[in-house]
Amino acid sequence: MTVKELARLLNCPFEGEGSTEIHGFNSLERAQKGEFSFLSHRQYRPYLEKTKASAVIIPADEKFDRIPVIRSENPYLAFIKGVEFFYQQYLPRPGIHPTAFVSLSAKIGKDVSIGAYSYIGEEAEIGAQSIIFPLVAVYPKVKIGERTVIHSGVSLREGVRLGNEVIVHNGAVIGSDGFGYLQDKAGSPVKIPQTGTVIIEDKVEIGANTAIDRAALGETIIKKGTKIDNLVQVAHNVEIGENSFLAGQAGIAGSSKLGKKVVMGGQAGVADHLNIGDNVQMAAQAGIMKDLPAGTIVGGSPQLDIRKYMKIVASLPQIPELLKTVKSLKTKIEELERMIKSK
Amino acid sequence: MTVKELARLLNCPFEGEGSTEIHGFNSLERAQKGEFSFLSHRQYRPYLEKTKASAVIIPADEKFDRIPVIRSENPYLAFIKGVEFFYQQYLPRPGIHPTAFVSLSAKIGKDVSIGAYSYIGEEAEIGAQSIIFPLVAVYPKVKIGERTVIHSGVSLREGVRLGNEVIVHNGAVIGSDGFGYLQDKAGSPVKIPQTGTVIIEDKVEIGANTAIDRAALGETIIKKGTKIDNLVQVAHNVEIGENSFLAGQAGIAGSSKLGKKVVMGGQAGVADHLNIGDNVQMAAQAGIMKDLPAGTIVGGSPQLDIRKYMKIVASLPQIPELLKTVKSLKTKIEELERMIKSK
Amino acid sequence: MTVKELARLLNCPFEGEGSTEIHGFNSLERAQKGEFSFLSHRQYRPYLEKTKASAVIIPADEKFDRIPVIRSENPYLAFIKGVEFFYQQYLPRPGIHPTAFVSLSAKIGKDVSIGAYSYIGEEAEIGAQSIIFPLVAVYPKVKIGERTVIHSGVSLREGVRLGNEVIVHNGAVIGSDGFGYLQDKAGSPVKIPQTGTVIIEDKVEIGANTAIDRAALGETIIKKGTKIDNLVQVAHNVEIGENSFLAGQAGIAGSSKLGKKVVMGGQAGVADHLNIGDNVQMAAQAGIMKDLPAGTIVGGSPQLDIRKYMKIVASLPQIPELLKTVKSLKTKIEELERMIKSK
Repeated sequence: MTVKELARLLNCPFEGEGSTEIHGFNSLERAQKGEFSFLSHRQYRPYLEKTKASAVIIPADEKFDRIPVIRSENPYLAFIKGVEFFYQQYLPRPGIHPTAFVSLSAKIGKDVSIGAYSYIGEEAEIGAQSIIFPLVAVYPKVKIGERTVIHSGVSLREGVRLGNEVIVHNGAVIGSDGFGYLQDKAGSPVKIPQTGTVIIEDKVEIGANTAIDRAALGETIIKKGTKIDNLVQVAHNVEIGENSFLAGQAGIAGSSKLGKKVVMGGQAGVADHLNIGDNVQMAAQAGIMKDLPAGTIVGGSPQLDIRKYMKIVASLPQIPELLKTVKSLKTKIEELERMIKSK
Repeated sequence: MTVKELARLLNCPFEGEGSTEIHGFNSLERAQKGEFSFLSHRQYRPYLEKTKASAVIIPADEKFDRIPVIRSENPYLAFIKGVEFFYQQYLPRPGIHPTAFVSLSAKIGKDVSIGAYSYIGEEAEIGAQSIIFPLVAVYPKVKIGERTVIHSGVSLREGVRLGNEVIVHNGAVIGSDGFGYLQDKAGSPVKIPQTGTVIIEDKVEIGANTAIDRAALGETIIKKGTKIDNLVQVAHNVEIGENSFLAGQAGIAGSSKLGKKVVMGGQAGVADHLNIGDNVQMAAQAGIMKDLPAGTIVGGSPQLDIRKYMKIVASLPQIPELLKTVKSLKTKIEELERMIKSK
Repeated sequence: MTVKELARLLNCPFEGEGSTEIHGFNSLERAQKGEFSFLSHRQYRPYLEKTKASAVIIPADEKFDRIPVIRSENPYLAFIKGVEFFYQQYLPRPGIHPTAFVSLSAKIGKDVSIGAYSYIGEEAEIGAQSIIFPLVAVYPKVKIGERTVIHSGVSLREGVRLGNEVIVHNGAVIGSDGFGYLQDKAGSPVKIPQTGTVIIEDKVEIGANTAIDRAALGETIIKKGTKIDNLVQVAHNVEIGENSFLAGQAGIAGSSKLGKKVVMGGQAGVADHLNIGDNVQMAAQAGIMKDLPAGTIVGGSPQLDIRKYMKIVASLPQIPELLKTVKSLKTKIEELERMIKSK
């Protein structure tokens, strides 16, 4: 492919030698001859100066002409589009591996791939072009949409439902029992039956070893387009709105509802039975203990408005000194009192 | 089933039309005609007023007669008993799947179920009526009691012992090596052999993707009735007393001992070599850095008595202002000093 | 084996009855007749006094002669050496299990063990004497070195590379997609292709259910000798230097670089794009939000120098009282002002 052809593919203008050949892609730092790269933020401009790439996608107004450039309003997005031309992630071919076990009552769509040693339970349904990697457990009555990808080591528990174009990474568990107990008269725990299920809507991505519990009653729901990182805990009856992002090791306790486009930083936690509005953002390690209105940005545990939180964080190192200061002020005031009274 | 029959099953009195038919159950909010529900806390009374349920289990003294009611001292417990009549969680039938691999020297009890592609190592023992779902790895010499359920994706490492009526959810690992190293003279890490094992007593439940390490010497022990949520870390040589609760993503470092009925909130952590007394409660995200006597309730990291912690949390937002106040007081005192001296 | 023979094996001097028989090992507290133990720290001296062990490894200068002793400069290291004589962790024999699936194009070295239902993808390579336990997914083009051990439930994603003498515990995932998205013009998330891979160098150990993501471009790298505990999150493009230690539930966000011999406490987190120098130590639950120079020791979230952090932690309980004190000082100063002016 040439720079000219790449520019046409991306529907962007180019400058410089259009016949320059491109056979791959890389970051500005790592790129070699024959690779194209991109400049997303001006802070990386020094890497642009030194890059060995043969072409680069840059913002419309960026001055640079040492090598052929392709101009885009969003160079990173354009770069991804280019990458998708050169790179195809490994996906197995359609077909059921001879060692897979597919129950007779399961319904398998057209061009589905089911890998070695995967188990498809009774009355499970898998939509067209979906891919089940090896060593996946699909319990009975699970419903999987079309073009969905389930990686090795995943367990989909009885009756959970996944939409179209969902990606579930290795080791994730969807539909395990929620964590609910009562005490009997003797004080021993009694398990509350977890009779509900989990619904994963279209285009959701779920990270490695993440766990999403089934509802006690009704459904745990992850709405369309939401992305969940690795090792995240989603408890029973949680609802997460569309296009939200949960970073690694975040956790949400039972029955809490998150709005659309909510962002949870890594290791952040949301307590149970809370309502978190649309576009709320939580800093890493934040601990949310109360409802948050739409658009709130919080940090700390328990959570505070992020600006207030930053001020407190900046104040904390002054506290040991503050304690001394106040002690000395107290002494001084007592002196002054004595002095005044003695006058 | 009728309301009258349900009341008899629950051994509770009923009021209203006893012949009302019941075919399912639900929450007050979601219930439809033909379903029964329950009122556990007075705060949900508004839902009771509006529920479409055909019958409801309510406290002995609750005034309500719009629909048939069943009265119970503990409506939630009674509801669960009723649910168990209508709902049976999916469990596979007894029998060894033709694709399972069971070592010749393994001892398999009566009416055990072993699912597709599960591997049962040499000299492993599985008690009567236990269920091994598909894709489970049971290493050699593991001992599993009766009526225990092991879900897909679980690994039970060599020699670990599980009691009766244990439930292990998908992806949990029991008996992985503890995290222990020494340094050799050159400063390189030397692995300390993890020669011990894990004992899981009766009626313990272990959540999805939780990890429980084997002891370096001796045993890691989870005592009877303890419930562990998803993604919890239990390090080597930890002991957890009876009927304790560990919420999602909690972690306990090596050799710490927890008493009976200890409650750990989500993402809480206990440092190594600590003694935590009976009935201790830790708030979510608490970090326990020292021994805690029985009955203590703590929050924060490092932990503080919960009331002290709540006070500090309430004080924190005042600190930036406090710093300013003290600064101005200091100025004022200096002024006063000058004034006094000049008089 | 006798005490004399054990001493010779450890290349250490002994005192007392050399013909005393030894058939096992244990801690001072648990040891019985016929077992040897060790004293690592003087704080455990009371256990030494009471131990029922038949021999004990003690420091060169420790006064003790009740039972036969072996003297070592590092009794714990010597103990481990002795343990390795008596104890051999369970490892399966070489050979490919008849139920394993090995692609025709995979290259399997000499004396490799591949367990039941393990799947080895196309063009994968497994070095001599490595052990793949049952139920492992090795995606295509994975490269595994020699004497490496992969436990049940592990997924090694396409093209990841593991060195020699690596240990990967159950349920760990290596090479899952990094968590990276852009927004399109409509504000919907667009997945950034994760085209890179993961390199795990020699003698790395990876805990149960830990997740290590593949790089977006280039490689996520875990260098030689680094030990990672259970449930740890390592995001895309992270680099971890040699001989570092990451305790349970620690997490590192994208593109951060850790130096050599870095120690992360349990549940500690490192934000993205940071540089953490050699020998940095982070307390449990620390939250690292900025670059840290070599040798820094930090605690708290956001991180502070550990001594400063400890002082603040000690100060916090005094804050509610401090607020009251300052309020009363303010009142007193106002009084003094009035008094002075009225004089």
